[in-house]
Amino acid sequence: MSGYVRALAEAAREAQAVIAALDADARTRLVAAMADAVDADRVAILAANAQDLQRARDAGTGGAMLDRLRLDDARLDGVVKALREIAALPDPVGQVTRSEVRADGLRIERVRVPLGLVAMIYEARPNVTADATALCLKSGNAVILRGGSEALASNCAIAASLRRALRECGLPEAALVLIEDPAREHVLELLQLTDLVDLAIPRGGEGLIRFVAEHARVPVIKHYKGVCHLYVDRAADVALATRLLLDGKASRPGVCNALETLLVHAEVAEVFLPGALAALAARGVEVRGDARVRALWPGAQAASEADYAAEFLDLVIAVRVVDSLEDALAHIRRHGSDHTEVIATADAAAAEAFVRGLRSSAVMVNASSRFNDGGELGLGAEIGISTTRLHAYGPMGLESLTIERFVVRGAGHVRHPDLLD
Amino acid sequence: MSGYVRALAEAAREAQAVIAALDADARTRLVAAMADAVDADRVAILAANAQDLQRARDAGTGGAMLDRLRLDDARLDGVVKALREIAALPDPVGQVTRSEVRADGLRIERVRVPLGLVAMIYEARPNVTADATALCLKSGNAVILRGGSEALASNCAIAASLRRALRECGLPEAALVLIEDPAREHVLELLQLTDLVDLAIPRGGEGLIRFVAEHARVPVIKHYKGVCHLYVDRAADVALATRLLLDGKASRPGVCNALETLLVHAEVAEVFLPGALAALAARGVEVRGDARVRALWPGAQAASEADYAAEFLDLVIAVRVVDSLEDALAHIRRHGSDHTEVIATADAAAAEAFVRGLRSSAVMVNASSRFNDGGELGLGAEIGISTTRLHAYGPMGLESLTIERFVVRGAGHVRHPDLLD
Repeated sequence: MSGYVRALAEAAREAQAVIAALDADARTRLVAAMADAVDADRVAILAANAQDLQRARDAGTGGAMLDRLRLDDARLDGVVKALREIAALPDPVGQVTRSEVRADGLRIERVRVPLGLVAMIYEARPNVTADATALCLKSGNAVILRGGSEALASNCAIAASLRRALRECGLPEAALVLIEDPAREHVLELLQLTDLVDLAIPRGGEGLIRFVAEHARVPVIKHYKGVCHLYVDRAADVALATRLLLDGKASRPGVCNALETLLVHAEVAEVFLPGALAALAARGVEVRGDARVRALWPGAQAASEADYAAEFLDLVIAVRVVDSLEDALAHIRRHGSDHTEVIATADAAAAEAFVRGLRSSAVMVNASSRFNDGGELGLGAEIGISTTRLHAYGPMGLESLTIERFVVRGAGHVRHPDLLD
Repeated sequence: MSGYVRALAEAAREAQAVIAALDADARTRLVAAMADAVDADRVAILAANAQDLQRARDAGTGGAMLDRLRLDDARLDGVVKALREIAALPDPVGQVTRSEVRADGLRIERVRVPLGLVAMIYEARPNVTADATALCLKSGNAVILRGGSEALASNCAIAASLRRALRECGLPEAALVLIEDPAREHVLELLQLTDLVDLAIPRGGEGLIRFVAEHARVPVIKHYKGVCHLYVDRAADVALATRLLLDGKASRPGVCNALETLLVHAEVAEVFLPGALAALAARGVEVRGDARVRALWPGAQAASEADYAAEFLDLVIAVRVVDSLEDALAHIRRHGSDHTEVIATADAAAAEAFVRGLRSSAVMVNASSRFNDGGELGLGAEIGISTTRLHAYGPMGLESLTIERFVVRGAGHVRHPDLLD
């Protein structure tokens, strides 16, 4: 370990104390100033992005990766809009979540405070540089960013704008640290700084997330993948179930809250599957099914066992007929990733059994899996989705970047007054 | 890895689904039955404890360690009473912490669910076997216990009682696993089971906690030590400050919420220190101070730099005179352990600056550090105190053994209705 990252983290921790001590209005102004700065620096940011894109093309990068890397005016509009929305969110810091006064007059409050220093390790999308910084600073934290080397010029340009906003607000620039040196040892050093880094959040492909989880000594909140299920119960409304299926699979197949597996109760398979699978196929979705599925809909390919654990992130779905709700639960427990599961049913008892029977971070009754999203679920914005069953489970908003601590106020209260005689 | 612990953990995970699916009354009855079982099995438990004590004496163990290990009827009364109190606590599982209905009718709830499988790694005190099991099962979790080898017979006897209660309630015994084989490799295996163990909580000396933190791939919540500070502000009431000092240092010096360092504003040092330090000395406390302290109270020894970071857990205190509240904050930030800090002051602005200026899990204004305890702060019982700034910060009660997840109910709600045309 070179100590290079430790020095950056120490500076960030000092700056964090300043950010945390601001009042809510000052943090709102800071994030609004960041929006203004990015808006004003479009030319420089797009020029930097053009360098990254050229380098990526020269290296033979194509398709989806190149698209994730790409910024244009419309996408920068989106970044600026997101920053303004984050600025306008309610500030969680200092919020008193519980307050009680004991019979002896001792007042016990639980108060939200920032986590401290958050490390983000991410790939490709340069907008994360702005989003993550805004969410962390709005909630009184400092942030250390480590983006992918493919987006280095874009990330540096965006970080320069964000730091200008810090400077213009009279605040320490070290509250935002971007590790610019691409050497991997710096990530390893960052992940060992247990005395300085309070939380690491990896965002990107499964490889990146596993790398962070395996090497971190600091706490990590992550999700590996979203293998999301729709279970169509025997008491399902077929039209409603079809809506959920199409929205879940075909509206945006590349995201983690898209459906990957459809489980259908045997009693409705015959009335539901042919129409539903035809509608999927009409939208370009490849269907992989077990023998019972293929008997009802010959357009299906044979599903392998691996298909039932796959996060396709594509226009592909695995389908299975099950004989009971219990079999559906057993399938999901075995193959699921604790992300999002959906039941379509008109039977309240079946819905309740489904909700209670699963550990997943979000369970939807007669609603699309695509609602598992911080914006949709009322968090305003999200810094990630957690399938780590600790601290935060599901979409993580500003509150997830804080922790409740105890503030106790007395008038000389002691536990052993006899000792004072 | 032998796979021995993995098999136990898999069985515990299956049993956990059964415990989680119980209603609150059934979990209350289970923990009450555990109290009855321990109460009924006193003879066997005390006989087992006598074996542990004999073995410890033969090995030359003495003093505090032997005392922590020892059970007698009065201590078993305490264990039974604690179990009954845990049985009577409100059940957090299924609690709806937030509920909102969107304009489009989609209902979004956050609901508390158990963490899953909790691993406790602890030393000496056999009562942890009962307390931890009761807290975990009451909150719908399963538990894997790994106690110290010095208490193995006692822990086995208590676990046998607790399992009898599970059996009598018709519940799977595997919801409580005690790793009886003392080989250390089993702990290492336990700490690697990221797919099965949701949280590990170490309780014991700093060595044990560091071992767990360094080897765990599963999430860990811990506190290394409690270096708790009392800052006597220039606006402090001297008599009130003396009360807090005596209660914090002399009422029970061996616990983590006892005071270790006293910081005194220079403007009150002359009126406060001589009387306060004499009162400490009268209660057998050794005072180690800087030059300004020793000038005011010659009974003090010279404090070393290490004394200001020490968790004495004994009748020893480090004392320093500071020139300002800011100097006190800087001292605490440098030497503190984020556990508990106290200010004595009549100045509301100083109190506020102290609270805001510190990261600690509990900050006390004119109240003793000894109140940082789950029972005192209204949690009913605690499974530990966290200085990990994630998930729980401060005393951890039943709620800290749960996590909020999202349950969403719609009527066929989708994000992209246009896709359905």
